[in-house]
Amino acid sequence: MAVVPLLSDAEASAEARGVFDEIRALRGTDHVNNFWRALAHDPALLRATWDRVKTVMRPGALDPLTKEMVYIAVSAANGCGYCAHSHTAAARAKGMTREMHAELLAVIALAMHTNGLASALQVEVDEAFRA
Amino acid sequence: MAVVPLLSDAEASAEARGVFDEIRALRGTDHVNNFWRALAHDPALLRATWDRVKTVMRPGALDPLTKEMVYIAVSAANGCGYCAHSHTAAARAKGMTREMHAELLAVIALAMHTNGLASALQVEVDEAFRA
Amino acid sequence: MAVVPLLSDAEASAEARGVFDEIRALRGTDHVNNFWRALAHDPALLRATWDRVKTVMRPGALDPLTKEMVYIAVSAANGCGYCAHSHTAAARAKGMTREMHAELLAVIALAMHTNGLASALQVEVDEAFRA
Amino acid sequence: MAVVPLLSDAEASAEARGVFDEIRALRGTDHVNNFWRALAHDPALLRATWDRVKTVMRPGALDPLTKEMVYIAVSAANGCGYCAHSHTAAARAKGMTREMHAELLAVIALAMHTNGLASALQVEVDEAFRA
Amino acid sequence: MAVVPLLSDAEASAEARGVFDEIRALRGTDHVNNFWRALAHDPALLRATWDRVKTVMRPGALDPLTKEMVYIAVSAANGCGYCAHSHTAAARAKGMTREMHAELLAVIALAMHTNGLASALQVEVDEAFRA
Amino acid sequence: MAVVPLLSDAEASAEARGVFDEIRALRGTDHVNNFWRALAHDPALLRATWDRVKTVMRPGALDPLTKEMVYIAVSAANGCGYCAHSHTAAARAKGMTREMHAELLAVIALAMHTNGLASALQVEVDEAFRA
Repeated sequence: MAVVPLLSDAEASAEARGVFDEIRALRGTDHVNNFWRALAHDPALLRATWDRVKTVMRPGALDPLTKEMVYIAVSAANGCGYCAHSHTAAARAKGMTREMHAELLAVIALAMHTNGLASALQVEVDEAFRA
Repeated sequence: MAVVPLLSDAEASAEARGVFDEIRALRGTDHVNNFWRALAHDPALLRATWDRVKTVMRPGALDPLTKEMVYIAVSAANGCGYCAHSHTAAARAKGMTREMHAELLAVIALAMHTNGLASALQVEVDEAFRA
Repeated sequence: MAVVPLLSDAEASAEARGVFDEIRALRGTDHVNNFWRALAHDPALLRATWDRVKTVMRPGALDPLTKEMVYIAVSAANGCGYCAHSHTAAARAKGMTREMHAELLAVIALAMHTNGLASALQVEVDEAFRA
Repeated sequence: MAVVPLLSDAEASAEARGVFDEIRALRGTDHVNNFWRALAHDPALLRATWDRVKTVMRPGALDPLTKEMVYIAVSAANGCGYCAHSHTAAARAKGMTREMHAELLAVIALAMHTNGLASALQVEVDEAFRA
Repeated sequence: MAVVPLLSDAEASAEARGVFDEIRALRGTDHVNNFWRALAHDPALLRATWDRVKTVMRPGALDPLTKEMVYIAVSAANGCGYCAHSHTAAARAKGMTREMHAELLAVIALAMHTNGLASALQVEVDEAFRA
Repeated sequence: MAVVPLLSDAEASAEARGVFDEIRALRGTDHVNNFWRALAHDPALLRATWDRVKTVMRPGALDPLTKEMVYIAVSAANGCGYCAHSHTAAARAKGMTREMHAELLAVIALAMHTNGLASALQVEVDEAFRA
């Protein structure tokens, strides 16, 4: 269980329910996932977070699937289990194939590997990268 | 300065120089960046790391630029300064525009934001994500 | 289950039970939480950790509730689920209201957001901050 | 140097300069710190981040100094050097004394210590915390 | 449940089963743990990861038990629960006593403590360490 | 520069100087490194941290060199540059050879790699590890 109870539609404030409705409409599903139900205790934070998700994750110079894969990468590095689950589901819903998932995992693992080495060795930044 | 001296071509072993030459050939540049020169103290680890970079970062189900952006995301979450510098340079060399960089940063920031909330709230994983 | 069995009072050494008794007395509860029962395998580490908790978390220039909120912030950034649970409970016991919790979460999320940007951008420290 | 050049007022867009002006006005200083000058490459992200800082960091159920100390805690756990510098400066500007800073550091260190133990031991969450 | 189903021997490809067999043979057990069964969705990543484990964890200048303890330390700092479990089990299988485990935990906790302080204080590296 | 000035012997309090003297005596060097000079602003935290270093890092079930290598591993995972520098220097002073350092780095890199995979995949803990 989360550190706060998850709010059902009946328990949520009108402001929070308004966000729930937008989530349902945008995603074409009746399911409002637990993250939003936990955030509903603070309708202002719920609204601010959801507005940011809508703005940031829409198509732009990067497509929505690429953005979901970047999201998975950050979540893996931070060890956020909930986030790895929810954004892997989202990436699949947006078309991530098994092959794409496999390559994503390989890049994450490699980045972790070289991050660990660069941090342990404290390699100084090349002048060439500073230009 | 790194915790080990960076090895020049003259100081590196033949095995390490072999990797340096592959880096130069693949990247079409004479510059071998500091990370590899620090790793050259252990030619076996240098070789294993470089072979993995070659294999993982080549085109596949994901294109090389997407992979570099995932790399930047992991590096930012881990706070690896060297890695943020080197992979931002690599992403640019592979075609990352200002607009793409800006959207990448926005996704990283949003993922950090929701990772922090999910971790602080300890939101339990939805059954829908476990299927 | 933890990587070690949790020790009951009967299983714990006299030294560990002494710490359990102090925890009960200071907190005015009979419940000794799992963290301490896991640490009881090493009475010296249990004692050192508990003594530090007693010293650091008592009222001083900062009040105990502020300290618990700082504790939650570190735990969220580190992704420590146990710690988020136990210190959110502790903060509530010390008077954290829903409004305070909501603002705490908003600050954590914002700090994660800007930490991610500063790390991805590798912003150099202003001279003004170094004075 | 950051991975992007820092934009001077002359180089920044009108939208970005508008944010710079708000920063100057709110803080009563002419100095716009490097973080904002790096973000100015993306006026929309700059605006969104600054608006969030204004909203989240203002007085509420928690006072602004407490919020800055929470910010320092997250930044230390994430190893964000820039953020540790800038928010320590901000906390001092808002009244953090030496004694408060010392106690903050002691709580951060203790939280890191017990986070490490709880993660290494994988202590299961007490039922008492789940209520 | 993981974000992918765990593959049984019957579900795994011939290439993945080949790795499973090597794991069984090297460890003298019939149990192939969940990590490998999740990785089996990408036989190439499974093979690359397992080959690296075989190479890196064998006796050398450091003995295998020391290597497992280093592995636990990284996993605790990263908050990887699965990894803390699996490598604590591995360390015990290689002879880690209770006393050794207790001292390992104490070092991890101390390193977390001083890491937090050095990051919060942004202590500059001594010239003496750069030589 | 650190977020606090480093205190010289003349600037430090008598209590802090007492710790400086113990550091010099135990290490057989006149150099008191920056970490301790930054901590000297809070003699109580300086004393508590140093006492813990003395207790935890002395020979026991694990030898001091193994402990330093565990320290490096935690510091690399946390991205603490100062700590990577100071504990690599300490490990060398205690006998870490080039070969040992190379193997340590390889284990850190491998642990980062599998931590990233286990976190991205959210692999569930085997029953066998829970016994």
